[in-house]
Amino acid sequence: MSTSFPQPIDSGLVPRFAGPATFMRLPLATSAAELDIALFGIPWDGGTTNRAGARHGPREVRNQSTLMRSTHHVSGIEPFKLARVADIGDLSVNPIDLLDALARIEAGVRSVVVAGAVPLAVGGDHLTTLPVLRAVARSGPVGMIHFDAHSDTNDLYFGDNLYTHGTPFRRAIEEGLLDPHRVVQIGIRGSIYAPDEHAWAKDQGIRIVYMEEFVRRGASDIMAEARAIVGDGPTYISFDVDCIDPSMAPGTGTPEIGGFTTREAQALVRLLEGVRIVGADVVEVSPPFDLAGMTALAGATILFELLCLVARQVAETRSSAGAR
Amino acid sequence: MSTSFPQPIDSGLVPRFAGPATFMRLPLATSAAELDIALFGIPWDGGTTNRAGARHGPREVRNQSTLMRSTHHVSGIEPFKLARVADIGDLSVNPIDLLDALARIEAGVRSVVVAGAVPLAVGGDHLTTLPVLRAVARSGPVGMIHFDAHSDTNDLYFGDNLYTHGTPFRRAIEEGLLDPHRVVQIGIRGSIYAPDEHAWAKDQGIRIVYMEEFVRRGASDIMAEARAIVGDGPTYISFDVDCIDPSMAPGTGTPEIGGFTTREAQALVRLLEGVRIVGADVVEVSPPFDLAGMTALAGATILFELLCLVARQVAETRSSAGAR
Amino acid sequence: MSTSFPQPIDSGLVPRFAGPATFMRLPLATSAAELDIALFGIPWDGGTTNRAGARHGPREVRNQSTLMRSTHHVSGIEPFKLARVADIGDLSVNPIDLLDALARIEAGVRSVVVAGAVPLAVGGDHLTTLPVLRAVARSGPVGMIHFDAHSDTNDLYFGDNLYTHGTPFRRAIEEGLLDPHRVVQIGIRGSIYAPDEHAWAKDQGIRIVYMEEFVRRGASDIMAEARAIVGDGPTYISFDVDCIDPSMAPGTGTPEIGGFTTREAQALVRLLEGVRIVGADVVEVSPPFDLAGMTALAGATILFELLCLVARQVAETRSSAGAR
Amino acid sequence: MSTSFPQPIDSGLVPRFAGPATFMRLPLATSAAELDIALFGIPWDGGTTNRAGARHGPREVRNQSTLMRSTHHVSGIEPFKLARVADIGDLSVNPIDLLDALARIEAGVRSVVVAGAVPLAVGGDHLTTLPVLRAVARSGPVGMIHFDAHSDTNDLYFGDNLYTHGTPFRRAIEEGLLDPHRVVQIGIRGSIYAPDEHAWAKDQGIRIVYMEEFVRRGASDIMAEARAIVGDGPTYISFDVDCIDPSMAPGTGTPEIGGFTTREAQALVRLLEGVRIVGADVVEVSPPFDLAGMTALAGATILFELLCLVARQVAETRSSAGAR
Amino acid sequence: MSTSFPQPIDSGLVPRFAGPATFMRLPLATSAAELDIALFGIPWDGGTTNRAGARHGPREVRNQSTLMRSTHHVSGIEPFKLARVADIGDLSVNPIDLLDALARIEAGVRSVVVAGAVPLAVGGDHLTTLPVLRAVARSGPVGMIHFDAHSDTNDLYFGDNLYTHGTPFRRAIEEGLLDPHRVVQIGIRGSIYAPDEHAWAKDQGIRIVYMEEFVRRGASDIMAEARAIVGDGPTYISFDVDCIDPSMAPGTGTPEIGGFTTREAQALVRLLEGVRIVGADVVEVSPPFDLAGMTALAGATILFELLCLVARQVAETRSSAGAR
Amino acid sequence: MSTSFPQPIDSGLVPRFAGPATFMRLPLATSAAELDIALFGIPWDGGTTNRAGARHGPREVRNQSTLMRSTHHVSGIEPFKLARVADIGDLSVNPIDLLDALARIEAGVRSVVVAGAVPLAVGGDHLTTLPVLRAVARSGPVGMIHFDAHSDTNDLYFGDNLYTHGTPFRRAIEEGLLDPHRVVQIGIRGSIYAPDEHAWAKDQGIRIVYMEEFVRRGASDIMAEARAIVGDGPTYISFDVDCIDPSMAPGTGTPEIGGFTTREAQALVRLLEGVRIVGADVVEVSPPFDLAGMTALAGATILFELLCLVARQVAETRSSAGAR
Repeated sequence: MSTSFPQPIDSGLVPRFAGPATFMRLPLATSAAELDIALFGIPWDGGTTNRAGARHGPREVRNQSTLMRSTHHVSGIEPFKLARVADIGDLSVNPIDLLDALARIEAGVRSVVVAGAVPLAVGGDHLTTLPVLRAVARSGPVGMIHFDAHSDTNDLYFGDNLYTHGTPFRRAIEEGLLDPHRVVQIGIRGSIYAPDEHAWAKDQGIRIVYMEEFVRRGASDIMAEARAIVGDGPTYISFDVDCIDPSMAPGTGTPEIGGFTTREAQALVRLLEGVRIVGADVVEVSPPFDLAGMTALAGATILFELLCLVARQVAETRSSAGAR
Repeated sequence: MSTSFPQPIDSGLVPRFAGPATFMRLPLATSAAELDIALFGIPWDGGTTNRAGARHGPREVRNQSTLMRSTHHVSGIEPFKLARVADIGDLSVNPIDLLDALARIEAGVRSVVVAGAVPLAVGGDHLTTLPVLRAVARSGPVGMIHFDAHSDTNDLYFGDNLYTHGTPFRRAIEEGLLDPHRVVQIGIRGSIYAPDEHAWAKDQGIRIVYMEEFVRRGASDIMAEARAIVGDGPTYISFDVDCIDPSMAPGTGTPEIGGFTTREAQALVRLLEGVRIVGADVVEVSPPFDLAGMTALAGATILFELLCLVARQVAETRSSAGAR
Repeated sequence: MSTSFPQPIDSGLVPRFAGPATFMRLPLATSAAELDIALFGIPWDGGTTNRAGARHGPREVRNQSTLMRSTHHVSGIEPFKLARVADIGDLSVNPIDLLDALARIEAGVRSVVVAGAVPLAVGGDHLTTLPVLRAVARSGPVGMIHFDAHSDTNDLYFGDNLYTHGTPFRRAIEEGLLDPHRVVQIGIRGSIYAPDEHAWAKDQGIRIVYMEEFVRRGASDIMAEARAIVGDGPTYISFDVDCIDPSMAPGTGTPEIGGFTTREAQALVRLLEGVRIVGADVVEVSPPFDLAGMTALAGATILFELLCLVARQVAETRSSAGAR
Repeated sequence: MSTSFPQPIDSGLVPRFAGPATFMRLPLATSAAELDIALFGIPWDGGTTNRAGARHGPREVRNQSTLMRSTHHVSGIEPFKLARVADIGDLSVNPIDLLDALARIEAGVRSVVVAGAVPLAVGGDHLTTLPVLRAVARSGPVGMIHFDAHSDTNDLYFGDNLYTHGTPFRRAIEEGLLDPHRVVQIGIRGSIYAPDEHAWAKDQGIRIVYMEEFVRRGASDIMAEARAIVGDGPTYISFDVDCIDPSMAPGTGTPEIGGFTTREAQALVRLLEGVRIVGADVVEVSPPFDLAGMTALAGATILFELLCLVARQVAETRSSAGAR
Repeated sequence: MSTSFPQPIDSGLVPRFAGPATFMRLPLATSAAELDIALFGIPWDGGTTNRAGARHGPREVRNQSTLMRSTHHVSGIEPFKLARVADIGDLSVNPIDLLDALARIEAGVRSVVVAGAVPLAVGGDHLTTLPVLRAVARSGPVGMIHFDAHSDTNDLYFGDNLYTHGTPFRRAIEEGLLDPHRVVQIGIRGSIYAPDEHAWAKDQGIRIVYMEEFVRRGASDIMAEARAIVGDGPTYISFDVDCIDPSMAPGTGTPEIGGFTTREAQALVRLLEGVRIVGADVVEVSPPFDLAGMTALAGATILFELLCLVARQVAETRSSAGAR
Repeated sequence: MSTSFPQPIDSGLVPRFAGPATFMRLPLATSAAELDIALFGIPWDGGTTNRAGARHGPREVRNQSTLMRSTHHVSGIEPFKLARVADIGDLSVNPIDLLDALARIEAGVRSVVVAGAVPLAVGGDHLTTLPVLRAVARSGPVGMIHFDAHSDTNDLYFGDNLYTHGTPFRRAIEEGLLDPHRVVQIGIRGSIYAPDEHAWAKDQGIRIVYMEEFVRRGASDIMAEARAIVGDGPTYISFDVDCIDPSMAPGTGTPEIGGFTTREAQALVRLLEGVRIVGADVVEVSPPFDLAGMTALAGATILFELLCLVARQVAETRSSAGAR
């Protein structure tokens, strides 16, 4: 631990509404070098098949994240004391060229990974997770705990299009980025295209927890199973804000009623404790459809929850490394 | 089952935001002839004593219903394969003449009933349910399972006015359209005009389940009782969107805090399985007071839940008829 | 009980949207003389360190309170038959001079207390509770049951500023207005400035119930403890609308996700039965950040819940006084 | 002039956002007795054939009118020094019975007229002007200067309905309330139902000034003609807020692009100087469709402009009476 | 003229808010066969480099177009009596594949052109005009009168991307679809990327009328010049809604203050009289950024203005053909 | 001129919605050293007597300013080539201590002035202009061209409060910061507190141009007079966004209908050419009351207009200095 770690601006001296907004009011860094955890945006929604707008997500999550303070009130974690964290800005994207955008995003995340920092991304639509995984899973497939209303394991769109925000995890499995037996999807719900829509995913070994099962069993039980599934291998966390109920997260492209409360979502995320997180994201925050910044605030708070988990992991790793 | 049943437009080929909006992206039919289930709007709110706007409900429910897909993710029901369903447009109404409007609505629903189709209506304010019942209950009183924050069994308004959205079920009982011993009202809450406001309803035999009892007992228990009350006789389902909490359904005229979550509402509706549904409605969606289409989306999703139940019932009836 | 008590305008004769809005559609009184309970606004938010707007709270709570009816549907309480209640308008404030505003508010509440009426205040930001307590606790410290996302027991701001909406209860304890051993804070959550942020409060004897404990134990258990803590001494009730989840109460300055549902909030407030209430408030309703009047409606309904409790207490006191 | 005239609350002592909102922050009077000018609302929109909501107009116009100050910055008129003015609340209406509502409104205005006060009404939809005219024109037809996007002289609706917000002035002429040769309509525009839609009105002698003619000739020229047409006979002023462009007055039921700017509207109203005004109204402010209170603010400001004109007329009449 | 031409639903019998929304409440046709004028949507915004959302344009323009009536109040034109007009739905698009989308759009418009109908398109972003021109200008370059805040003649984006909503008219000229000497752009304004940003366009022969020149010279003068430039050759009209001021058309992706009023825009469009219109569009209506449907209403009204012009042209052509 | 001047991020490479928002997408500088022009925010509204919210102005103006490009389309000015410009963040303020806030703001601006940079401030409420003037006018009174709906020369508030957003210019004259004979106020309108409200200002020598005079005479004439009044002495430009009509700038605390169009505002500002500008501000942008970012966009565009003027002045000064 070092007092020279980047620290958020003190809201007891500078009001929260003052100054350009960065994630958690952290300093802007030009790269992930010298960081343990890199926060960045991926302002891109070119994989969206219905209501676009997630390209504006990073800026508004930054804006609402200025409400975050420095300490987690339950765990007592002080992430900015445990790890070197900064906002490294937004990755380079291309709003009108899908394949170029995927390449740019992958390159951006790779530079974070190469620098030795854990990437915490703010989307962007869910297709952005695919290039993130390409960068994160370079040395082999990872596991994933995935909070979402949708499985996002569809195959083709409009005949032959491989890449949309409904297909990233089929592609990720096909590309060997995810180990499907170490993938859990939680919160899935809403009408589907066909009774066998999730058959492929299940055949691969993905564990799908529908909302109804969550309601029956509760967060602790579900997350115990989830942690068992991913084990102690490297695991990616993907949080699609549409897992939360549209009344609490209206600013998203594909809302489905009957979702998690934010309280449940926080409980779920806190139960990730012990999972070896190699990267995480909060995606599908779409400000043009948001109300009063509510969805961006939920996204920012979940980002803070994830950050606390990763910061503790960083500190523990450093400490155990130091002990050796 | 037939492949020639009307089918929704495929959103894998035509994006959901494309084209004029119909209920569930179904074809528009000019009448209920040849249909098993007729979806229609009743764009009228002339019985509203406080905040009007439900006249705009059908159009926005259509709009949000374009997010629905073809299959229920829990029951696996594919309604458009089980039954002939179409959008038959909106019934004729009269925005400035209450009695004429009631007569037009009754006539419109009667033509659906006469054609042998089950009417699924989208209001409009709750007074529209009265003429629907006049058409549905022509051969004798029906039962009703009624989700609402309000009992809607008041008597007179402004001295001598019989017809408002607070009185339909008193009128329906007086007219012999409802068998009060087969009526259950669920979700009732909010301040009332007098301690005995519900005395008349209870005296008639109506079972009122206040929100507090629901919270204590849960959906399964309450719905088991509700199903027992209506038995296997013909039953109408009326879903006033204000039974849902105003945070999830702000677009309504008489909001009362402390309502159902959409998740609870879905659970309740799914527990209607086995009830013999002769008609159903979703009412009081008021777009001018809505936020981000949230209430219309809730209404559209509940409509889809109801549709699935009725479609299965249609298929079972057909199948059992065929077996005979 | 008297038929000459002030009564709300009858919405069966005058629609709820008609006429200038007063709290609960009650008559406007020029003072608290002749009243048992005085409803008033404190349109001031000069203690707000982030997003202002609570100065507009009283007017919008009045507006939404026109939806309230005369009788509580669970307890059957008819407050306007049990007690003399009126809207005495807004207290005098000063939008640009903090100390002058605090003095004016204290004077305003003192005149209510001196008149023998119970003050029910609608803020305004939470700093307004400090001068209210100065008036209410003139003869000695009172207990407090406090619903909030935040403890509001911080010390200084911007170096040496004593008075903000984050500090009222530290000041109240320092000034001997609150007996910290008779203070319970319920619903506390959200990131904090330091791990020991609540240490001072706890050291004083304040009982802090974090949201997580509430979720584990439930309303009945928590409120049984709260009632035991305050005992039968004089107790103030402070309801910061940000204790409610931001999806249900977005119109507030410092939203924290994961809050109470309005249903839970109603349950908590109803469990205040038996507490000896010497004053109460609903604060931090900020209309510029509200959506569809949702927060003001929640505030107005909680105000009605509190009013019912106090009215019964008034009637019981009168009755027991009469019996003597 | 008298210092005992009712005066608005001083915003240098009580902030504008404080207290229940009345028109111009004037005292509430229980009747028009002792008044020269009575401000009142008519919260009714039962004649609306498309988007309702004007029933909520009076409350929001009151709300925005709290921004008005005491003196006109161009004419220097101080209306509250020249005349006895108060807010007498809203007239009695009936939201679900059109004919009863018209009768109640007429009775309400009649009591104002009988008391000798000039009625300044805030609607409500434009059908409310018909019963106002029935009260104002009891001793003979009056002239009218009418600002509107629509002529509102249609005949029947839905076959045989005589009374909608599209028909008031045909009815008023048929009933002998308006002298059509002393009627000018200014700002008419938007697509029409048939080329001869305005033929009846023109045949009666009404002068219709289309928006295009206004653009060509300008406010001074048009208003000179308007003043010549009405001459020095008793004249009613009806200001439908939809004469203003929908960007400046979006909160209305039948918007038509290409309307007056508020600046033009103010210029037009100021050029009413010298007209003998026997009553006036501002109608069709529909808050559910409004944005940021913009339409209500425009309506409140036009109401203030009209009030200034009438107050001067009152003072001049009194003065000339005193001189005799 | 024939009474059998498709007619809008009569709003004297069916309220405007009733029924699924089509353009101008016209019947839906399955193709342009048998039509003189085809109204259709192009729900696509894949060329948008900043704020997307125009994909939702057609549905909301349909929605607001239900406010249109049958006759132009200035010209007296009754388009539905002069020409066979219908809504043929939305063209097929592809939300995630730019080149496929362009091909689909071109094919869709070609089928309209081949059927002999004049295409009136509602975008969609401005890149959609490129494939429309490919269909319309098959037999040779056309002229264009183009209302816009931006010239849309940029070259490359992100290095080497040819197709964005900032480049359609450079591409159209390069492809020989537009005769640059017969192109006028009116309303251009806003900060630019470089002093020579418009040099290429001017070098080609395009006449750019900046907003400042319009303010100086006025609509009549500018349009006289515009008509002279396009002469009597075939001319396309492209109306980007961002030519209108953002206060009147906020729902667009690239707002620039200081734009046309809707009144000016109507005047400009009416002055197209005499131009030989071979197709027209209204583009860049972006509902997620719109307020109260204001932009969609402006778009719908301009569409009606264009429709009237084309309908008269159709009638005149038919009449002159018949005369021969 | 130097290629090493700070340049905005290129939106042809990084989309405008990407990255943390700074003014004009310029680099953030830690101080005004090495700058010719310093852009900064003053996030403070403690002088606001009615609707607060301008504290949030700088962040939203930054957000909307990302739509600005690098070159003025009329003058051809490229400010970032002519001068060294950067965003130096927000000045230090104190949300709850008025006098401390004024001192902090003055100190912040003084450091800019001392560094030799021209301050371009974004408020904040209009009281922030007082401490700016204290810093700018240290060596003697300056002139001022002031665009506003209000004169802001009131004296006391709530009895004895000297400092509100209605009093800055009386204080500035009393303190010798402004030379009243070199002060012009343009756009003044709206109801006033008393007929002599502006008498003090006029007595001091201030020239007040009411909106009505502007309408009569036009921008060129008015600005010729304004330029003559301020002459070639040092002049401050203060642009209160409420000078613009509330339909175009709804996000402000004290809206007055009948304001400037943005087109007129741009014309007025461009006619400042030749004035010797020693500082400028855009104030009273209040995002909580804004719609779709419209007011912040207007503010950002006016800021760009002012920046262009100052940048040319900087270049001319440098050039003439170099020539010497």
